Amino acid sequence: MSSDDAATVPRPTRITAVPGGPHIDVVRDFDAPPERVFAAHCDPALFSQWIGPARLITVVEHMDARTGGSYRFVQREHDGGEYRFRGSFHEVAAPHRIVMTFEYEGAPGHVELDTASFSDLPDGRCRLRVHSTFESAKERDAVLAAGMADGVEEGYRRLDGLLADGIA
Amino acid sequence: MSSDDAATVPRPTRITAVPGGPHIDVVRDFDAPPERVFAAHCDPALFSQWIGPARLITVVEHMDARTGGSYRFVQREHDGGEYRFRGSFHEVAAPHRIVMTFEYEGAPGHVELDTASFSDLPDGRCRLRVHSTFESAKERDAVLAAGMADGVEEGYRRLDGLLADGIA
Repeated sequence: MSSDDAATVPRPTRITAVPGGPHIDVVRDFDAPPERVFAAHCDPALFSQWIGPARLITVVEHMDARTGGSYRFVQREHDGGEYRFRGSFHEVAAPHRIVMTFEYEGAPGHVELDTASFSDLPDGRCRLRVHSTFESAKERDAVLAAGMADGVEEGYRRLDGLLADGIA
Repeated sequence: MSSDDAATVPRPTRITAVPGGPHIDVVRDFDAPPERVFAAHCDPALFSQWIGPARLITVVEHMDARTGGSYRFVQREHDGGEYRFRGSFHEVAAPHRIVMTFEYEGAPGHVELDTASFSDLPDGRCRLRVHSTFESAKERDAVLAAGMADGVEEGYRRLDGLLADGIA
């Protein structure tokens, strides 16, 4: 599939959140094999170019993407506002699995456990599944209310572009 | 309170698991301030002496109990059987809070997120609350079915002993 095709074919992100539960499930296909999509999650230089929301500038302070490592990044508004995020890597198993924690430092004490699975699809494509678990349904609902779905979709559309351009 | 009193006063551990949910909540009081109970969770030489179940010998391979660190320990049966556990520390904030992941390597892919809070009680005692979140209710139920409650209680009774004896 050429990069022109990749730019025009819709790639909807399916986001499921069963009412009353503490989970969010995201499913998204990419026009690249697991190795490249996995690497785009672990390489700070790539990650900072695609992670959403699209309006924010992302700077990775550190990202030690190995089992037992940790990360921290900041996202900046054009008006100077900042949001910091951090977590630890429980497991990094290239190219098929990342298990990590995630926390917005502006709301400390609300930690999320994310399991990302990268599986092969035909024709050199891959399917990313992210299973996010929150410490309560209330915390999960707050993340959805804050616009998580838009930010995720914007990020994955940028990742589509990096993959289509051969950058990621 | 003398160590004789500590050995005879019952210290029940309250374990709550709402049906259909992915959480387990544990509440346990100790006859020592948060600093000492917290330290017993972070110092591998202490941790290995109390963590349950009581029949197992625990050897900590590494325990880097700081934000962004990780740990791994093995528990051995007297017949030579071994169980390995590992995880990462999302946050270690002495003496009041530990957020960590936990996984039994014998059932890989079932990761638990634990938040332990240590709060002051009158008379130099403390209350430990552990909020455990699993990736599904099914995984939570499997842990309960495996006898988690007995192992936790046995461990805390040993910790009572270490605290009463001034070892922890």
